[in-house]
Amino acid sequence: MVRTLEGTPAGDGYRMPGEFEQHDGCWMIWPERTDNWRMGAKPAELAFAAVAEAISRFEPVTMCVSSRQFINARRRLSDRIRVIEMSSNDSWMRDSGPTFVIDDRGGLRLIDWDFNAWGGLDGGLYFPWDLDDLVPRKVAEIAGVDRYRAPLVMEGGSFHTDGEGTLITTEECLLNPNRNPRLSREQIEGYLGSYLNVEKVIWLPRGCYNDETDGHVDNLCCFVRPGAVLLTWTEDKEDLQYERSAEALDVLKNVTDARGRKLEVHFLHQPAPVTLTAEECMGIDSVEGTIPRREGDRYAASYVNFYIANGGLVVPVFDDPADKQALEKLKQLFPDREIIGVYAREIILGGGNIHCITQQQPKP
Amino acid sequence: MVRTLEGTPAGDGYRMPGEFEQHDGCWMIWPERTDNWRMGAKPAELAFAAVAEAISRFEPVTMCVSSRQFINARRRLSDRIRVIEMSSNDSWMRDSGPTFVIDDRGGLRLIDWDFNAWGGLDGGLYFPWDLDDLVPRKVAEIAGVDRYRAPLVMEGGSFHTDGEGTLITTEECLLNPNRNPRLSREQIEGYLGSYLNVEKVIWLPRGCYNDETDGHVDNLCCFVRPGAVLLTWTEDKEDLQYERSAEALDVLKNVTDARGRKLEVHFLHQPAPVTLTAEECMGIDSVEGTIPRREGDRYAASYVNFYIANGGLVVPVFDDPADKQALEKLKQLFPDREIIGVYAREIILGGGNIHCITQQQPKP
Repeated sequence: MVRTLEGTPAGDGYRMPGEFEQHDGCWMIWPERTDNWRMGAKPAELAFAAVAEAISRFEPVTMCVSSRQFINARRRLSDRIRVIEMSSNDSWMRDSGPTFVIDDRGGLRLIDWDFNAWGGLDGGLYFPWDLDDLVPRKVAEIAGVDRYRAPLVMEGGSFHTDGEGTLITTEECLLNPNRNPRLSREQIEGYLGSYLNVEKVIWLPRGCYNDETDGHVDNLCCFVRPGAVLLTWTEDKEDLQYERSAEALDVLKNVTDARGRKLEVHFLHQPAPVTLTAEECMGIDSVEGTIPRREGDRYAASYVNFYIANGGLVVPVFDDPADKQALEKLKQLFPDREIIGVYAREIILGGGNIHCITQQQPKP
Repeated sequence: MVRTLEGTPAGDGYRMPGEFEQHDGCWMIWPERTDNWRMGAKPAELAFAAVAEAISRFEPVTMCVSSRQFINARRRLSDRIRVIEMSSNDSWMRDSGPTFVIDDRGGLRLIDWDFNAWGGLDGGLYFPWDLDDLVPRKVAEIAGVDRYRAPLVMEGGSFHTDGEGTLITTEECLLNPNRNPRLSREQIEGYLGSYLNVEKVIWLPRGCYNDETDGHVDNLCCFVRPGAVLLTWTEDKEDLQYERSAEALDVLKNVTDARGRKLEVHFLHQPAPVTLTAEECMGIDSVEGTIPRREGDRYAASYVNFYIANGGLVVPVFDDPADKQALEKLKQLFPDREIIGVYAREIILGGGNIHCITQQQPKP
């Protein structure tokens, strides 16, 4: 029996844990739309499968797949991955999916945010998004957990929490008039507090350059642990990302978290820009209502967009000279976790990366 | 992790329990196809919902629903019912669904039979049936149970077991050349033995008159408990059902079960024939490839097509003078269970009844 709850998670003693806390598993969605994923989504399938297999070494993975793709996904994935039928408009479980919350008495629930495909009719990435908006409800039924219906548009990739009362996000996304134009900054902070159980919201100005999510924080900056963050970085002042990372650093250096701590800031140097080739562009269907992809488009590639699994880290790599340094840095920052790089060009070409296509289910 | 197993259930120490043994729950599929269910399936939805709600008083119910109907089903059902997205060609979970087997050490597995829509291209009821054939595999993933892939066409409604080594079925169905034309009676008995772990197969000649399943036993006869069966009956020698029930009785009176017992035979008098009215017929879409429904068609209404739940019995009733007597008889036969009648005209008009639209998941 799955209930739709009145009240709020914070009011009921629930909080969103940090991603680095223990999980019971990970949820993903199989890529399919041919107006976003080139060549009938076949290259993306391999990349999603590689991510799923990597995560499944550390925790159970459930892959949600449309009826049309069920057998194909089942055959391309090992028996370790659970495959469940679920329709969707695209495959960004971080953003269309639920946010799980836990309490101290073994309780697990989820938050079902409104979803409008990163901006609705005002800059959103596709239309319609009706099936995406049902994903959290369907996950609730499968997982058997009660659900809060939150009265605002929010994507899981637009915030990170440290599990101890602090949240980081970006003004570019959460204050964008294409998300919740009727809500003030203070009202949005109020909702973040009552749904995710945080007391302190750290507002970074903008996300990564050319990030089509309107600057999701999960491509820019994340928590390594409470009190320590990791920021995507470049030393190249000519690069269009430089100013954005520098602005964020300025905030991070001068803020304290909910526990009154100054933040330890670590850096991950970004890879070279990933741009769409003519051949890749040719493989993408043109569809009215979907953001077009053009040769030469720059994608917001970032190593910060990794997934923290139980005892592991699954990290996007780009066949870039900076890959090695990024993986080494992550090994220093997460010494107790195994670091696995997955070649992620085919994921970033769809507009996001490994963190965007995953959603952890925390262990209560 | 869900595995597809080599070997057979009997070889691995698994057996199909009797339906009267304890369950962990019940699986159903939401009705939708408008070429079978009149008036856009809306009247059938109410009947399916009534069955689900009745069963949910005794054990958890999962309703599998297509993407299109997800929200409609979710809203028409109470929170007690779990609603899961699953595509199918029609809504007969007994026949397209899995057969669960258990062992004595807490194990639960399922059998995934071949399915050909009750006869394939030679008298089957619709085309295609590809989604129906995937239902057991999808249930396995959701329930997290390993799966045997059985190499023959079989529907769950075509057999009943007593959990102690005996199975009843009909020659009309299992020996029909539109199911397994390459298998002899002995070979089919061999498969029933190795998959359901039975030693004795009792062959009744035919099922109910005009039963479009080719005589499924679950509309004619079932086990009340090991050693006791219940047979649909009529005293009217002019009725086209009379000879069929009499033939079955002749077999049942003269047979012993796997434990060497003579069978105790009980009778349930059938309701008056249910026939399709002109108005009902008007509400059904005509589609190439689906068996047509015609005004005056007689349906195989039978009280035997009930579902045994934990502590309960959910029984089809027809607003017929025989309803009361049937419910009273069932109360005598199942004194420890609560008997609930559900008005089932809208289900029988689709070609089956309460047993046909349900599938128990036994408690290991």
